[in-house]
Amino acid sequence: MEGRLKVFAGQSNPVLAREICRALGVTLGNKTFTQFSNENIKVKIRENVREADVFVVQTSCSPVSDHLMELLIMIDALKYASAARITAVLPYYPYVRSDKKDEPRISITARLVADLLETAGASRVLTMNLHAEQIIGFSRIPVDQLLAIPIICDYFAKKDLSNFVAVAPDVGRAKTTEHYARRLDLPMAILDKRRIGDDEHAVIRHVIGEVEGKDVMLLDDEILTGGSMLEGIRALKECGARRVLAGCVHGVLSGSAVPDIEASPIEELVVTNTIPLKRESSKITVLSVARLFADAIRAIHEGSSVSALFD
Amino acid sequence: MEGRLKVFAGQSNPVLAREICRALGVTLGNKTFTQFSNENIKVKIRENVREADVFVVQTSCSPVSDHLMELLIMIDALKYASAARITAVLPYYPYVRSDKKDEPRISITARLVADLLETAGASRVLTMNLHAEQIIGFSRIPVDQLLAIPIICDYFAKKDLSNFVAVAPDVGRAKTTEHYARRLDLPMAILDKRRIGDDEHAVIRHVIGEVEGKDVMLLDDEILTGGSMLEGIRALKECGARRVLAGCVHGVLSGSAVPDIEASPIEELVVTNTIPLKRESSKITVLSVARLFADAIRAIHEGSSVSALFD
Amino acid sequence: MEGRLKVFAGQSNPVLAREICRALGVTLGNKTFTQFSNENIKVKIRENVREADVFVVQTSCSPVSDHLMELLIMIDALKYASAARITAVLPYYPYVRSDKKDEPRISITARLVADLLETAGASRVLTMNLHAEQIIGFSRIPVDQLLAIPIICDYFAKKDLSNFVAVAPDVGRAKTTEHYARRLDLPMAILDKRRIGDDEHAVIRHVIGEVEGKDVMLLDDEILTGGSMLEGIRALKECGARRVLAGCVHGVLSGSAVPDIEASPIEELVVTNTIPLKRESSKITVLSVARLFADAIRAIHEGSSVSALFD
Amino acid sequence: MEGRLKVFAGQSNPVLAREICRALGVTLGNKTFTQFSNENIKVKIRENVREADVFVVQTSCSPVSDHLMELLIMIDALKYASAARITAVLPYYPYVRSDKKDEPRISITARLVADLLETAGASRVLTMNLHAEQIIGFSRIPVDQLLAIPIICDYFAKKDLSNFVAVAPDVGRAKTTEHYARRLDLPMAILDKRRIGDDEHAVIRHVIGEVEGKDVMLLDDEILTGGSMLEGIRALKECGARRVLAGCVHGVLSGSAVPDIEASPIEELVVTNTIPLKRESSKITVLSVARLFADAIRAIHEGSSVSALFD
Amino acid sequence: MEGRLKVFAGQSNPVLAREICRALGVTLGNKTFTQFSNENIKVKIRENVREADVFVVQTSCSPVSDHLMELLIMIDALKYASAARITAVLPYYPYVRSDKKDEPRISITARLVADLLETAGASRVLTMNLHAEQIIGFSRIPVDQLLAIPIICDYFAKKDLSNFVAVAPDVGRAKTTEHYARRLDLPMAILDKRRIGDDEHAVIRHVIGEVEGKDVMLLDDEILTGGSMLEGIRALKECGARRVLAGCVHGVLSGSAVPDIEASPIEELVVTNTIPLKRESSKITVLSVARLFADAIRAIHEGSSVSALFD
Amino acid sequence: MEGRLKVFAGQSNPVLAREICRALGVTLGNKTFTQFSNENIKVKIRENVREADVFVVQTSCSPVSDHLMELLIMIDALKYASAARITAVLPYYPYVRSDKKDEPRISITARLVADLLETAGASRVLTMNLHAEQIIGFSRIPVDQLLAIPIICDYFAKKDLSNFVAVAPDVGRAKTTEHYARRLDLPMAILDKRRIGDDEHAVIRHVIGEVEGKDVMLLDDEILTGGSMLEGIRALKECGARRVLAGCVHGVLSGSAVPDIEASPIEELVVTNTIPLKRESSKITVLSVARLFADAIRAIHEGSSVSALFD
Repeated sequence: MEGRLKVFAGQSNPVLAREICRALGVTLGNKTFTQFSNENIKVKIRENVREADVFVVQTSCSPVSDHLMELLIMIDALKYASAARITAVLPYYPYVRSDKKDEPRISITARLVADLLETAGASRVLTMNLHAEQIIGFSRIPVDQLLAIPIICDYFAKKDLSNFVAVAPDVGRAKTTEHYARRLDLPMAILDKRRIGDDEHAVIRHVIGEVEGKDVMLLDDEILTGGSMLEGIRALKECGARRVLAGCVHGVLSGSAVPDIEASPIEELVVTNTIPLKRESSKITVLSVARLFADAIRAIHEGSSVSALFD
Repeated sequence: MEGRLKVFAGQSNPVLAREICRALGVTLGNKTFTQFSNENIKVKIRENVREADVFVVQTSCSPVSDHLMELLIMIDALKYASAARITAVLPYYPYVRSDKKDEPRISITARLVADLLETAGASRVLTMNLHAEQIIGFSRIPVDQLLAIPIICDYFAKKDLSNFVAVAPDVGRAKTTEHYARRLDLPMAILDKRRIGDDEHAVIRHVIGEVEGKDVMLLDDEILTGGSMLEGIRALKECGARRVLAGCVHGVLSGSAVPDIEASPIEELVVTNTIPLKRESSKITVLSVARLFADAIRAIHEGSSVSALFD
Repeated sequence: MEGRLKVFAGQSNPVLAREICRALGVTLGNKTFTQFSNENIKVKIRENVREADVFVVQTSCSPVSDHLMELLIMIDALKYASAARITAVLPYYPYVRSDKKDEPRISITARLVADLLETAGASRVLTMNLHAEQIIGFSRIPVDQLLAIPIICDYFAKKDLSNFVAVAPDVGRAKTTEHYARRLDLPMAILDKRRIGDDEHAVIRHVIGEVEGKDVMLLDDEILTGGSMLEGIRALKECGARRVLAGCVHGVLSGSAVPDIEASPIEELVVTNTIPLKRESSKITVLSVARLFADAIRAIHEGSSVSALFD
Repeated sequence: MEGRLKVFAGQSNPVLAREICRALGVTLGNKTFTQFSNENIKVKIRENVREADVFVVQTSCSPVSDHLMELLIMIDALKYASAARITAVLPYYPYVRSDKKDEPRISITARLVADLLETAGASRVLTMNLHAEQIIGFSRIPVDQLLAIPIICDYFAKKDLSNFVAVAPDVGRAKTTEHYARRLDLPMAILDKRRIGDDEHAVIRHVIGEVEGKDVMLLDDEILTGGSMLEGIRALKECGARRVLAGCVHGVLSGSAVPDIEASPIEELVVTNTIPLKRESSKITVLSVARLFADAIRAIHEGSSVSALFD
Repeated sequence: MEGRLKVFAGQSNPVLAREICRALGVTLGNKTFTQFSNENIKVKIRENVREADVFVVQTSCSPVSDHLMELLIMIDALKYASAARITAVLPYYPYVRSDKKDEPRISITARLVADLLETAGASRVLTMNLHAEQIIGFSRIPVDQLLAIPIICDYFAKKDLSNFVAVAPDVGRAKTTEHYARRLDLPMAILDKRRIGDDEHAVIRHVIGEVEGKDVMLLDDEILTGGSMLEGIRALKECGARRVLAGCVHGVLSGSAVPDIEASPIEELVVTNTIPLKRESSKITVLSVARLFADAIRAIHEGSSVSALFD
Repeated sequence: MEGRLKVFAGQSNPVLAREICRALGVTLGNKTFTQFSNENIKVKIRENVREADVFVVQTSCSPVSDHLMELLIMIDALKYASAARITAVLPYYPYVRSDKKDEPRISITARLVADLLETAGASRVLTMNLHAEQIIGFSRIPVDQLLAIPIICDYFAKKDLSNFVAVAPDVGRAKTTEHYARRLDLPMAILDKRRIGDDEHAVIRHVIGEVEGKDVMLLDDEILTGGSMLEGIRALKECGARRVLAGCVHGVLSGSAVPDIEASPIEELVVTNTIPLKRESSKITVLSVARLFADAIRAIHEGSSVSALFD
C-alpha cells in the first residue's frame, strides 16, 4: 500500500491502542467521540485520511453493543472520508462464541458481525485467537488471525512443568487445549461434562485421562465469568489433582470473576491484554500482545508476510 | 403475501408492540431474549417462521445500541429460519438525525443503519415521521413512512386555536412545522438562532414572524432533552408570546426533560408512544400510534395500499 | 492515487470542462462522441486510460436524458478500459429535485441516478450544492459536495447590503436561504405559499418576517423557469419591498426564463456556470466555479483534504 | 405468481401496448407521465401495485434516451411501490447493436442496459429477436426472447418463392438470414463488403453464392436508415438479380428511410410493429407481434412454458 | 411455497435420489446430461420449471469436480428457466474438510463452494453432518443440516454395548464422537497423535482415557481411505482393547478402503448412503438417509419446521 | 499497478506458462498442487503475494472440470492471501461454446464461468479468440481478448495463396472465417449444412460460393474432434476442390482427432499452443502465442495499452 499508515482507536481499549502505536512509531489518529443525550454516537475524524491505509483498533468489551456501533460508525466515516483501505483490528472479535446454529432459529452472530463490518466498509480484519478456526470463513474480506498461544506458552515454559497435565474444560475445547499442550509438550486430560446416574440435578464430572497426583493447567481461548473453570477445578481436585494453573488468551472476566479467582485454589491465571482488566489482581498475570499486533499491522501495510511472524 | 402474518418485538417498546398485536388480532411471536455475562445478546425464535410474513417491532430508545443490535440479530435469526419476508417496524428510526454530512469526515449514520438492516436480512422498513423526507432514499429496500402529524393535529384541533401561531424551533425545521400549520390552518413563526452583535458568548434569538400577544405552539418531529425548546420558549416570551403549547411525534425526553418541562411555562406537551415515556407527567399527553401501525402492517401483508391509510 | 490524472467531458458543458482543465493545467481527454441515426450514443475514448485516475465532467442540462446516458456510457467505457478510478463530476446533479417520495408510487430519481452511476462504474461523485444535504446519503460511493454559496456571497458582499433582507421562496427552502443569510449577515423573511380565506382559485401569499421598506434578495439553490420567483417578487412588492436582487447556484433558466427576468423588477440575478446560459442578458451575472472544481479534483487526486478548500 | 397481472406502458409504443392488453383481456395500468420544464421525467403510478406481477412495455425508439430513462424511472417507482415482480417488456431492446467491443475503449452498451435494468429493479426481461443470441448472457436476470421470424416467414410463405434466394446483407448477418432461409427452404447468398483491387475509394461488392436470374429476398433482424440495404440491392441488380423483397423484425426506418424505400426497386418490405412506423407506405407491410407478446406474458404470469409458444 | 415441488438429480447418486423421490411420492425431474468430446457438460431440463420449488440432489463423490460443475450448471439452467426457488441438496457437502486456513495462503474451499452455489443461483442448501458446525456460517443463504448420528446410534443401540467405549480418532474430532457417546451413553477415549520421545520417525500413539479390556467403537463423521482409522485400531489393540466396531456418516472409502477394512480386526463398519458404496462388503452396513431427506424436503416445501424432524 | 508482477500456473498447460514467464523475464510463482484421495484439490501458494499483481494461467483442457476447479481455488487462495489484483489468464476460455440459449432450459455456461471467476476473486480476465465477440459482455470485470488470427495468417501468408478460397465450416462461423479472409485477401465460400430433398437420413451439403478447381483453406476459431471439418472436406472435394489446408486458434483435437487428420486429405493443419497437443503429428503445425500473452501481461501490469499490441 502506498497510502500513509494511520491507526485510529475506538473507546474500548485505549491503552492497548496506544501501545500498538508506540510499537509502530506512529501517533494515534485524531478523532472525537461524542455520545448525545439520546445515546446516539458521533465520531468525527479530525485529520485527512484520503488515500490513507487506516487501521481501526476496537476490542469487544463492555459496553459491547456501544463499542460495536462505534466501530461500524468509525469505519463508515472513514470510508466516505475516502480512506484507501480500512482494516478492522479486533483483538477480541465481537460475538465470537455465536459461531454455530446448535439450536433452531438462532443467529450465527459472529457471521452477522462479519457482514456488518463489510457493509460498513471494512476491507480487511485483523484479529486474535478466534473461538473456532472456521470463523475466518465467515468473512468475505481477508482476515488475518494472530495467535497468542505462543506468547502464553513462552511464559509458562519458564516454569518447571514436569508434573503438569494440560486440561481442556470440555470435549469441544480439546482442540484448543491441544495447541498449548503440543507447544509445552504436556500430556492432556479432558473434562467430560455429562451427567452419570439417576440424580436429576447433580452434575457429576468425569475426567478423560490421568490427573491423579498431577499438577494441572487449565487452558482455553477465553474465560468469561470463570464459573465453569472453577467448577472444573473442583472436579480435578476430587480426582486427586494438586497444583492448579490456568491460561487463556481473552480474559473477559465479567461479574465477580476476579474475586472468585482470588478465592480459588488457582495459583496463577495468565491472560493477555486483548481485553482491559477491570481490576488488577496478584493472581492474574497480563501479557501484552501489542508488539504482535504492531508487527502484523506493519506487515499488512508494507505487503510483507503476516504468517512469517509466526515462524 | 400468502405466508402467515407474524409479529415479533424486541425489548424496546413491548407495550406498543402488544397494542399493535391487539389491533391486528394476532398473538405476539414467541421468542427468548438473553444477554450473557459478556453482554452478548442471544435471541431465540421459539416458533416456526418458515415462509411466514414477519414484522419485527423495535423502536430506537435507551439503551440504543443494544436495541439496534438486538434488532439486527433478530432479523438475522428470522432470515436464516427461512422467513419469507421480514419487515423492520421502526416507530422511531435509529440515528434518524445523523442524516447529513454537515461536517467533514462524519458518518451519515441513518444511511449506515439502512445498510445494516438490509445486510441483516430486512426486506422492508415501516417507520414513522423521519427527520427529513429524503431519508427514505437511504434504503435500497422499500420504506413505508407513516405520519403521526394528523393524529396530533386532530387532538389539538379540539382546542380553541384562534389566537395561536405555529412556531418552528429553527429555520431548518420550518418545513416540518409547516405540515402541522397547514393542517391546523395556523400562521407561522420561526426561531432564528443566529447571534447578533458583538458579544461572543451571548446567544440572542430573533423570531421571524409575528408572535407578540399571540399564543404559541412549538411543533417539531422530535424532542430530545427539551433544552432548546425551553430556550425557544424564553425567547418567545421575551417577544411577547402568551400561552405555550408544544407537540412532537417522538418524545425522546432524555435526561431531566420531564421535570424540566413540568417546571416550564408549557401548558401541555403532546407526544406519541413511538418511544415509551420514562416517567408520566400531568403536562404530557401521549397519543397512541398503534392503530396506524396495525393498519399499515395489515395493508402490507395483504398487498393493499398503505398510502390509502392517509386519505 | 498514483495513476495519471485525466479529465474527460461529455457534451453538456464543454466551456466549463475546458476552464477546469485550464485551471488544472491538463489537456482535456481525447474522445469521440457519435449519435447514430437510431439515436444510439457511442463514445470512444481515444487515449489509453489504464490505471489512470479519471474525472468525467457532465452537468445535467438539456437534452437531459441524452446527457445522462452519455455519462453512463462514458463511465462504462472507461471502466472496461481499465481506468483505476472514475469520478463523476456533476456540476448540476441530474434529477436533484426528485429527492423524496411526497406522493405515493413515484420514484426518488436522484437516488436512482446514484445507483445508475455506481452500476455503470463510477467510484466517486463530485458535485455542487445539492437540493438537500441528505442526497449525499443516496450514494454508496463517496460524494464530495462543493458549495458555491461563498462565491455568490463574496460577489454580493461588495454591494451595500445594509437595507437588505434575505428572502426564501418558501418554507421548505428556508434552510438554504439561511446559508446565504448567515454569510451575508442579513435578516431573513420567508414566503408562505398557503392560501388564506375563501377564494378557491386566488393564491394569496403571505410573508413571514419583515420586508416593508426593505430591499430584498431572493436566494435559493436553483431557478428553473423563474415563474415562482417572479410570483414571489410580486408578493414582496405588495408587502412594500423596494429593490430586488436574486441569486442561485444553478441557473437552469428554461423556457422563457431569460426574457421574463429581463422584463421583471429584478435588478440583477447572479448565477454560476454549472449550467451553460442559453442566452446572455445584461441582468444576469455568471460567476465561474471552474477554479473550485479544479481545486477539488486536484485534492481528490492527490489525497489532500477537500473540506480544507472551504476554510 | 399469485399476484395480480398488471401491464403498464411507457410513452414509446402505446398502440402496441394497448393491443397486448386487449389480447390479454386486461386494462392498461393507470399512470401519469410528466416532463418538467427542466426535462426531468416524473412517472406516477396511479393504482395500487403491491404484490402485483407487473409488466412494463417500452420499446427503444425515438427519443431513445428519454424512453430508456422513463423505463428505468417506471421500474424504480414500481419497485418501491412494492410490486412483487417487474418484467421489462422490450419489443426492441435498447442499444442492441452495441453488443461487442470491436474497437478499443468503447462501451458494450447492450450489457450496460442489462445492468441498468437490474439496478432499477427489473426481475425479468421479455424481448424479441436480439441482434445476437449471446446478448441474453449479458443479463443476470432471466430473459425470454421471442422470435418474430416465424410470423414473417408465414407471411412470405403465402407467395410463390420458387425462384427466390435469401440474401444476407453481410457475412456477419448470415446466421440470422439462415433462420429465415431454413424456414422458407430457400438457398442463400451473402453480400461480401470487402474492397477488391487498387482503387482506394471504390467500394465494390461481391456476392457469395448464386443470384443471377434469381429473385432475391433481403432478410435481417433490423433496418435502420435502409442505406446499406439499398446499396446491397444495387449490387444484387448488377449481378443479375430480378425481383426484390425484403423483411426484418425491427423497422427502425429513421431519417429518409421510408421515402428511400418507396423510390427503390423493392417490391415490398415486411416489418413488425415492435417499433411504431413514423409514416405509412404502400410498400411496407406491418405484421403485429402483440398476440405473441400477450401469450408470453400470460405464460410468464401463470408459470407455463414460454418455449412451448414456439412449437 | 405455492410452486410445485420438483426434484432433480445429478449423476452422482441416482439411487439415493430415486429413494428420496419415492419417499416423497414424486417423479424424478426429467433432464438430459451430456458430456461432449471436449468434456464440457451440458444439462438440459426437459420439463417446465417456471415458478416451481426445485430441489437438486447431488452428492460429492468421484468424479468430484465433474459433479460439482454439473451441479452448478444445473442450478444455473434452472434459475434462468425461472424456477421460483432452488435448493441444493448435498448429502455429502463438497470440500467439507477444507474449512479452515491452518496454513498460510490456502483456500477455505468449503466457503468458496458456498459462494459458487449462491452465484449459480441456489436459494438454499440442505445437507447432512458437516465436518464442523461452523460451516453453516459460510453461506449467505439458509442452510439446513440434517443429522444422521441418531440413525447410526439407533442401529448400534440394538447391540449390547455394556463394555464399549466411544473412541475419537483425534482430539480435533472429540466433539463429534461425543455426539454419538451422549446418545449411546458410552464413556469416551481419544486417540492422541503426538510423538513422544526421541525417535524422529516413529509415530507412537497415546490414548487419552481408559480402553484396556474394553470393546471400542471408533466414531466420526467421515472415513476417507480408512488409513488413519486402521492405524488407530492398531494403537487401541496395543493398549488392550478387544472388539472393534466403527461408524461414520459419510463413507467415502476411496482407494483400497473396502478391502483394507475387510482385512482388519473391525467387526462391522456402519455408514449411510450419502455416498454410493463402490463395492459391497459383508463387514459394511449401509443405512439409508433417504427418508430423512424426503421429510426435510417436504418440510421446506410446505414451510413446516425442519428442526421438528429431530425431536 | 505498483505491486510486483507475479505469474502462477495451474496444471493445465505448464509449457505455455513457462514460455510466458520466460518472455516476461520472471520466475513462475511457487505453489503446490495436491489432489487428495477423495479428489479434493488443495493449492498452496508458497510465496508471499500481498499487494502483488498476480496473473494465473490456466487453459481449459482435459480434465476440464478439475482444471476449472483448480483455477477457482487458486484465485480464492490468492484473494485471501491479499493479492492486490488477480487476472485470470485463460488461453482457451472454459465452456466458450456454451454462449447462447438456443434450446429451452439450458445454461449459458460461458456466462456462468464469468460469474464463478468473479465470485472466486478474479479482477480481470485475459483470454484469446472467444467463440463469439459478445462473450466479453458476459463478464462484469474487464476482459482483454487477444487475437491469434494475425499470427496464423502471417504463417500462411508465406505460402502461395493465389488459387485459395477461405472456407467457413458453416454459416454461423462465416464471420470468423472472414477475419482470416480479409487479412489474407482471399475470396470466401461457406458450407451450408441444411438437408435438401426427401431423404430423411441423407445429409447433403451445399457450398455457398465458388470452390471448383480451387484450393481451399478451412478456417475457424477451434477444432474439437475434427469430425465436422473432415465431413466438410469431403463435400468440398465433391464440389471439385483441390488442395486442402486448415487453420484454427484452439486445437482441442480430442478423441481420435490427430490420427483422423493424418489419414485425411489435409496437407497441413495450423493451430496455436493455447491447448497442449496430446500427440505430435507431421501434419500439424503449432504456433506459439506465448510472446503475445507476455506482452499483454506486461501492458496490463504497467498500464500501457493492450489494443496497441494489435497495431
